[in-house]
Amino acid sequence: MTTEIMDRQSIAAAAARIHPYVRRTPVLFASESEFPTPHPVALKLELLQCAGSFKPRGAFNRLLSARIPAAGVAAASGGNHGAAVAYAARALGVAAEIFVPTTTPPAKVDRIAGYGARVVRVGETYAEAVLACEERQRQTGALNVHAYDQAEVLSGQGSLGRELESQAPDLTHILVATGGGGLIGGVAAWYAGAAAIVSVEPETCPTLHAALRAGEPVDVAVAGVAADSLGARRCGSLMFEIARRFVSEAILVKDEAIREAQTFLWDRFRLIAEPGGATAIAALLSGAWLPPEGARIGIVLCGANADPAKIAA
Amino acid sequence: MTTEIMDRQSIAAAAARIHPYVRRTPVLFASESEFPTPHPVALKLELLQCAGSFKPRGAFNRLLSARIPAAGVAAASGGNHGAAVAYAARALGVAAEIFVPTTTPPAKVDRIAGYGARVVRVGETYAEAVLACEERQRQTGALNVHAYDQAEVLSGQGSLGRELESQAPDLTHILVATGGGGLIGGVAAWYAGAAAIVSVEPETCPTLHAALRAGEPVDVAVAGVAADSLGARRCGSLMFEIARRFVSEAILVKDEAIREAQTFLWDRFRLIAEPGGATAIAALLSGAWLPPEGARIGIVLCGANADPAKIAA
Repeated sequence: MTTEIMDRQSIAAAAARIHPYVRRTPVLFASESEFPTPHPVALKLELLQCAGSFKPRGAFNRLLSARIPAAGVAAASGGNHGAAVAYAARALGVAAEIFVPTTTPPAKVDRIAGYGARVVRVGETYAEAVLACEERQRQTGALNVHAYDQAEVLSGQGSLGRELESQAPDLTHILVATGGGGLIGGVAAWYAGAAAIVSVEPETCPTLHAALRAGEPVDVAVAGVAADSLGARRCGSLMFEIARRFVSEAILVKDEAIREAQTFLWDRFRLIAEPGGATAIAALLSGAWLPPEGARIGIVLCGANADPAKIAA
Repeated sequence: MTTEIMDRQSIAAAAARIHPYVRRTPVLFASESEFPTPHPVALKLELLQCAGSFKPRGAFNRLLSARIPAAGVAAASGGNHGAAVAYAARALGVAAEIFVPTTTPPAKVDRIAGYGARVVRVGETYAEAVLACEERQRQTGALNVHAYDQAEVLSGQGSLGRELESQAPDLTHILVATGGGGLIGGVAAWYAGAAAIVSVEPETCPTLHAALRAGEPVDVAVAGVAADSLGARRCGSLMFEIARRFVSEAILVKDEAIREAQTFLWDRFRLIAEPGGATAIAALLSGAWLPPEGARIGIVLCGANADPAKIAA
């Protein structure tokens, strides 16, 4: 399936490969008085990425690393990965079929279709969409682009870590939301211990938290406000090996803290984040994660595919 | 009234003075394929500034340069300047009275009040609010903070130009929206000919366009989608002398082009801009301004105090 080895070299190669197609998203350095604790905070504005989330990094790296069959590409997604694969497929001139559960918000479905992909709505969970996608992919021979558990996808997401380190070289702690774990796996592989990587998940989607307790990826029930972007039933096996070595803490936050973080981001920074995109910062704002003295904090704001009317007052 | 001389030195001094209180807003470098013409574009994300627009730069510089009387500060505003003065007054622990016309959107009125200022709604236009503010200021002795026609305010806004030059040193053309002209006056004074400064105004608020044709600031009728932020009846006298020397073109755009630019910014970049904040980019997107070959374009996105529900699909 996937043979690429996941390390700093593969991430650097991915970054070079995808460079013409994705944005180097900016970092906003907040002043120390803007957060509950007096630490410097660097916000990585990945919600300004093409297609509205970090996902095009991995999607482009997967597509650019493979020989794409005539049937094109297929992917299952809660929404953001599907939008990214559709976006990348259009940019590279190949066909895409995207399988989403019926819970995927209409705005995300419309966006995937807007990029020219064929959208198949199937099942009530991401896991069911995955099964449907795999079956279809066996029929057509399309290239499967997994949302998180492929080395090329992880390396692509890891390019965010490489970029952030160059933009804010002295961070001690980096907060990243975890769903299937592609983003945090890539970022943790890049830093490889050079900064503490803090996983943040909704209490309602505790995928990595449960896996670290069990010592292996395990199925969890998923629900709540961020389920469409963080609602993988279990974390990826590739990312888990990285997380075991390089993720220092796995924090859980309440759905209400995520909603409050969305409001905070609009009210103070004029940023629209979807629930999954506001999950990492919710850990700092709610006090679920308490930074140690001297911490220099990076927070990845990783997605904006929300309906703004539901966020702002 | 105001004695400070407006030049690069005063702008550098303003930048140092306001540094602890305002954000260094990031720049997003867009790829050449993202705009109608194949030029590199740097978006200055000033809509992520404190209080949602560039205005705190000038407000803080004015307040930090003056001895503030017991009566505090007073300002007339279409909304953004009022929010900035209220924000700055709160940060510095002084009282603020803000005079806004009845056309100021409720969201901006709420924000001003939310920062703890006393809000007075008076008259149908910004010009009427100015008269009411001046009368009150004569009674109380409060410090008047003009929205654009004070040297300290211009120098503060000019700090955006200084910042942008350091972030994107090789720009040849910089598009800035003009209302009363405080922002473009400050930016043009900083560049002083080192880059072409292009003014963009709605056809419905052609303040600088009319002044440059007349050879002096003249009254114009103001209306349209951006009137609450760009609807000064005439441009400032201080900025006009700068504009005559250093503004290379004064472009007009249709209100519809501004609305389309707002939609573009959300759809492609996940940025919420208010009409005045999207006016500069509307000139490029609509073709009202055609960049010459080899142009390296900076665009200032200067305000986000909009209701997101009215922008996104």
